[in-house]
Amino acid sequence: MTTPQSPAQATFQLTHNAYGKSANRLVRIVRDSPRHEIRDVTVDVRLWGAFEHVYLDGSNAEIPATDTMKNTVFALGKTDFSTGAIEDFGAVLAQHFVATSPRVERARVHLVEHPWVRLPADAEGSDHTFFRGSSGNHVAWVEHDGATGTTSVKAGLDDLYVLKSTASGFVGFERTALTTLAETDDRILATTVQAEWTYAPDVDDYAESWTAIRDVLVRRFADHHSDSVQGTIFNIGTAILEARPEVLDVTIELPNKHHLKVDLAPFGIANENEVFVATQDPFGLITGTVARAAA
Amino acid sequence: MTTPQSPAQATFQLTHNAYGKSANRLVRIVRDSPRHEIRDVTVDVRLWGAFEHVYLDGSNAEIPATDTMKNTVFALGKTDFSTGAIEDFGAVLAQHFVATSPRVERARVHLVEHPWVRLPADAEGSDHTFFRGSSGNHVAWVEHDGATGTTSVKAGLDDLYVLKSTASGFVGFERTALTTLAETDDRILATTVQAEWTYAPDVDDYAESWTAIRDVLVRRFADHHSDSVQGTIFNIGTAILEARPEVLDVTIELPNKHHLKVDLAPFGIANENEVFVATQDPFGLITGTVARAAA
Amino acid sequence: MTTPQSPAQATFQLTHNAYGKSANRLVRIVRDSPRHEIRDVTVDVRLWGAFEHVYLDGSNAEIPATDTMKNTVFALGKTDFSTGAIEDFGAVLAQHFVATSPRVERARVHLVEHPWVRLPADAEGSDHTFFRGSSGNHVAWVEHDGATGTTSVKAGLDDLYVLKSTASGFVGFERTALTTLAETDDRILATTVQAEWTYAPDVDDYAESWTAIRDVLVRRFADHHSDSVQGTIFNIGTAILEARPEVLDVTIELPNKHHLKVDLAPFGIANENEVFVATQDPFGLITGTVARAAA
Amino acid sequence: MTTPQSPAQATFQLTHNAYGKSANRLVRIVRDSPRHEIRDVTVDVRLWGAFEHVYLDGSNAEIPATDTMKNTVFALGKTDFSTGAIEDFGAVLAQHFVATSPRVERARVHLVEHPWVRLPADAEGSDHTFFRGSSGNHVAWVEHDGATGTTSVKAGLDDLYVLKSTASGFVGFERTALTTLAETDDRILATTVQAEWTYAPDVDDYAESWTAIRDVLVRRFADHHSDSVQGTIFNIGTAILEARPEVLDVTIELPNKHHLKVDLAPFGIANENEVFVATQDPFGLITGTVARAAA
Repeated sequence: MTTPQSPAQATFQLTHNAYGKSANRLVRIVRDSPRHEIRDVTVDVRLWGAFEHVYLDGSNAEIPATDTMKNTVFALGKTDFSTGAIEDFGAVLAQHFVATSPRVERARVHLVEHPWVRLPADAEGSDHTFFRGSSGNHVAWVEHDGATGTTSVKAGLDDLYVLKSTASGFVGFERTALTTLAETDDRILATTVQAEWTYAPDVDDYAESWTAIRDVLVRRFADHHSDSVQGTIFNIGTAILEARPEVLDVTIELPNKHHLKVDLAPFGIANENEVFVATQDPFGLITGTVARAAA
Repeated sequence: MTTPQSPAQATFQLTHNAYGKSANRLVRIVRDSPRHEIRDVTVDVRLWGAFEHVYLDGSNAEIPATDTMKNTVFALGKTDFSTGAIEDFGAVLAQHFVATSPRVERARVHLVEHPWVRLPADAEGSDHTFFRGSSGNHVAWVEHDGATGTTSVKAGLDDLYVLKSTASGFVGFERTALTTLAETDDRILATTVQAEWTYAPDVDDYAESWTAIRDVLVRRFADHHSDSVQGTIFNIGTAILEARPEVLDVTIELPNKHHLKVDLAPFGIANENEVFVATQDPFGLITGTVARAAA
Repeated sequence: MTTPQSPAQATFQLTHNAYGKSANRLVRIVRDSPRHEIRDVTVDVRLWGAFEHVYLDGSNAEIPATDTMKNTVFALGKTDFSTGAIEDFGAVLAQHFVATSPRVERARVHLVEHPWVRLPADAEGSDHTFFRGSSGNHVAWVEHDGATGTTSVKAGLDDLYVLKSTASGFVGFERTALTTLAETDDRILATTVQAEWTYAPDVDDYAESWTAIRDVLVRRFADHHSDSVQGTIFNIGTAILEARPEVLDVTIELPNKHHLKVDLAPFGIANENEVFVATQDPFGLITGTVARAAA
Repeated sequence: MTTPQSPAQATFQLTHNAYGKSANRLVRIVRDSPRHEIRDVTVDVRLWGAFEHVYLDGSNAEIPATDTMKNTVFALGKTDFSTGAIEDFGAVLAQHFVATSPRVERARVHLVEHPWVRLPADAEGSDHTFFRGSSGNHVAWVEHDGATGTTSVKAGLDDLYVLKSTASGFVGFERTALTTLAETDDRILATTVQAEWTYAPDVDDYAESWTAIRDVLVRRFADHHSDSVQGTIFNIGTAILEARPEVLDVTIELPNKHHLKVDLAPFGIANENEVFVATQDPFGLITGTVARAAA
C-alpha cells in the first residue's frame, strides 16, 4: 500500500509548503461585571517552517497537529484575550506558535471579528443581550517571523454592504463594436467593501484606529460624487491616508453589485431612476492600492 | 418524441398544482425629495387556478407566463409602491393577478424586505447613502382569493441573530442510557429568530405594527430568564399578544445555535463560562404557536 | 428576571409545539470485508408530544434533550444501520423515540443520503476510496405514531441538476399589456429536481424502489418534448406511477433555472440557440402532484 | 459634492490597480449534429493597464466598460468556442482584450468549466440530455502580456470531493501541554481537492492533459497509505509529474474535512472506526508545491 518515495525525491522537490487550522470559531464572554462584553472571532492559523520531512518521509516528528493549534486558540482565548484588540491577540498567538515549536519559523494568524450590538440601555437585560451587527467585520493579519523576531500587522474591513441611490455615474468610456452599455450620470452604486491596510509600527490602539478608519471610509463613500468605482476607491483611499497618519497604504476591492434600471417603457410607464432590479452576476470587480508618495 | 398523454389521464389524476415566479429582486428608490427612501424587497409570486390543461394537454392557453409576473412586480413597483407597507403592495399584486387573468383563482405574494440604515444625519450625503441593516427582515404573506374576494395578511420576521450571554439554563430533563448532556444553569443562548403572525382584519398601519412587534420580541428575549428555548418561545409569544391586540396568534421557530463551553481543564485553565466554540451543526430546532384563548 | 407566566396562561394558549435535533451528520463505514461501504446521511429528528409544561412552566421534566437525540442517531447508527435502506433506519429511530420517552407521542425522522461513488475496480484502493456523486440525494421521511402504532414512509429525491439542450418550448401563453416574453419552440430546460412520493404499505426493498424510480424520472425527463415545465411534471409523474405500482402519488417541484438566449444581433452575430447566459434569479417555480385515479 | 482630487494626488499615489468582470455564466451548446455538446463555463476577466486617470481624474476615457467585457465573452463564446479546450478559448479572450483596447497592457482570463454528464446511450433523448457531474471543475488561468506578446497558461481542478475510509493515519506528531489529539493509524481522510499546475509551452491538447492529470490524481489518492495530508500532497504531486511531462510544477491545497470518530463507550457500544460525525469547522488546511528538480 505504501508508495516508495525515494525515487520521487531524487527527481522532484518540494518548493513550497505550509499548513494550519482554519475556522476556529472562538466566542469570548468578558464577565468581570454584570455588564458582559462579547468577542466573536473566527481565527485561521497558518505556519511555515522545517516541515519537509512530513511531506517526503512519512514522519510527523516534531510538528504541531492542527488540533493543537485549535486548542491553543481557545486556551489563549481565555488567558490572553478579553477586551483588547484582535491585533494584540493575534500577536500573542503568532509569537506563541513560533516560540513553542522549534520547527515553526513563521506564523500568520488571520482574525475576523464579527460585530455584535448591545441592546439599548433602557432594555432590561441589555447587560448581556446582543444582536448581530452589520457595520462590517474587523479583519486582521498578524505575522511573526522567528528569524527576525518581528511581528507585522495588517488590518482591514469586509462584509460592509453600502449603497448610494444617486451621486454616481459612468460616462465617457471606450465604445467599440462590442459596447452596448448606455452612459448614465445617475445610477445606483452598491458594493460590499473589502479593504486592507498596513500600519506603521507602534500603533497605540488598534481598536480605536479601526473604528476611526471605518468611519472615514463610510463618510467618504457618502460625500463624494462617484465618476466610477475606480474614482471612489481613490477617493476613499486618500481620505483614509489624510485622516490617519498610522496608515501606510490601503488596498480597496469593490464588487459592483449592479442594480439595473428596469425598462418600463413597453408598459407606458416612465422610470426616472426609481425602479431597479438587483442582480448577482455578472459583476464588475475593481481594485486599487493608495499609498503615501515618496518624499 | 412526444409522449401520448391520454392513457395516462385515464388512469392518473393531477391532484395539486401551482406555479409562479420567485426571487424577483425589486429595489425602489423614492426620490420625491433630495432625501431618498430605499425599499429593497424580494418578491415571490405563486398562483393557483384552472391550469390543469397545461399539465395534461401540452397547451399553455390563457395562462400567465412567469416572465409576465416578473414584469408585473416591477411595473407595479413603480405605480403602486413607494413609502407604504409591503403588506399593502402585496395586496395590490395579489389582487392584480386574480383580476387580470381569468384562470387565476388564488394568488399568494410573499415579500421579504431587507433593511437598510441611513447614514447619520451629520454625514454629508446621508440623504442618499445607506448601509445594510441587521435588525431582521420584514416578511409578509398576502393572499387573495378570487372566489370570496378576501385578502388575508400574515407578517413575520426572519434573519434576526440574537444572543444572551447569560440568564439561560437547561436543567431537569430526561436522563436515559443515551443521555450525556450535563445540566447547566448558565449557558449562552443564541438563535436566529423566525417568527410569523396572523393579523386581525383592518390593521391600520402594517409598518408601525411590525416595528412595534419586533421591539416587543427583542426586549422580551432580553429581559427574561430562559429555562429552555421552549420557554423563551412562549414568553415571547405571550408578550407580543399582550402588547399588540391586532395579533391573533404568533408562531416562533428558533434554531438553537449551540455555543459549547470549551473544556480547558486539560490545560489547567478554569473556564467559568467565558470561552465557547460556536458550532453550526447539529442544532436544536424548537417551534411553538401561541394564540389568544377562546372566551 | 423571571417573567410570571400564570396570567399569560389564563389568556393565551399554546396551540402547536414540536422540537428536535437537526443536521446530525452521520457517516457509517461498513467494514465487514476489505471492500468498505459508506453511508453518509444527514438526519433531522422532530418530536411531538406532551411537552406543554416545558413552554408554560419552566420545567423540563421527562423531556428528552436534543443532545440525547443526537446521541441516539449515532448509537443506533452503529447497532441498527449498515447496508440497509435509510427508510428502515428511519423507522428504527422513529419507533425508538416513541418507545423510550413516555411523553413522546409522534416522531418524524427526515433522512438525506448523500451519494458517494466508488472508484473504478481497476484502481488500486477502490475498496475504500470514493468520490462524491451527483446522482441526486435519496431523501426519506419516516413517521411513527405512538397512538396507532403505525409507521408511514415517504421517499424522495433532491439536488439532481438536469438539463435538456433542446426538445423544450413554451408557446401560446396569455399575452397582456405586461407580457414581453417571446414564444419559443426551442429552449434550454434546466432544473434541480425535487420529488417526493408516498409508498403503499409493505414495500419490500426501499433502496431498490428508489433507484428504479430515479431511473424512470431521469429517462422520462430526457425522452419527451417539454411543452412547459408543467407538462414535464405530469409526464414524469405518470411515468413513475405507470412503472412502479408501490407508488401511490408523486409530487414534483421544479425551479426553472433559466438559461436566457443572448442577443448577439448588435454584434452582427447569429445566435441559433447556441449561446446562453445561465441566471440565478428570478426563477420560475412549478409544482404538481400526480396520483392514481380513484377506481 | 465633488471632492477636489488634486491635493491628494500631490501627497498620495496609486501603486496598484486592476479591474474586470467576474461571474460571466456562459453556456454554449454545440449543435452541429443532433448529438449536442454542452460547455458550461464561468469566466472572470481582469485587466491591467494605463488606467490611472480613471482613479485620479474622474475620466473614463478610452477604458473598456466591464459590460463590454461581458459582451465579449458571449460574442466570442459563439465565434471562437465550441468543442475546444477552455485554455484555448481563454487565450483568444485574453489576446482580444489586449489587441482591441490600447490602454490594456495585460489581461487575465480565469475559466471554470462545470462538468455535465450525458445520459446513457440507451436512454431516448440522450443526445441532448445531461446531468451535472461531480468529477471536479476544470479550471484555467490564461494571461496575455501585450509588451512581450506572450500567453501563459495554468490549469487546475477544484470541487472534487474524495474520501478514503481507511489507509490513512496520523501518528508521531509533537506533543505539548496543549496537545490532546490521540494518535491513530486508521482514520477517514476526506477532502475537496484544489490543484493548480503550470504547463510547459506547446501543450498539444489541454483537454486531454487535464483528463489524464485528474485520473492520476484520483488514482494516487486511492492507492497510497496516507501518513499525513502533507504526505498525500507530495505523493499526488510526484505522481502527476512522473506521468505527465508537460507539467512543470503542481500546487495542491487540501482542506482536511474532519470526520471524527464518535465515542460510543458511554453507551456500552464498541466503535471500531465505523461511526463518524462529519464536521464543517474548524478544519485543517494543508498546501504544498512539487516541482521538477533542477538538473
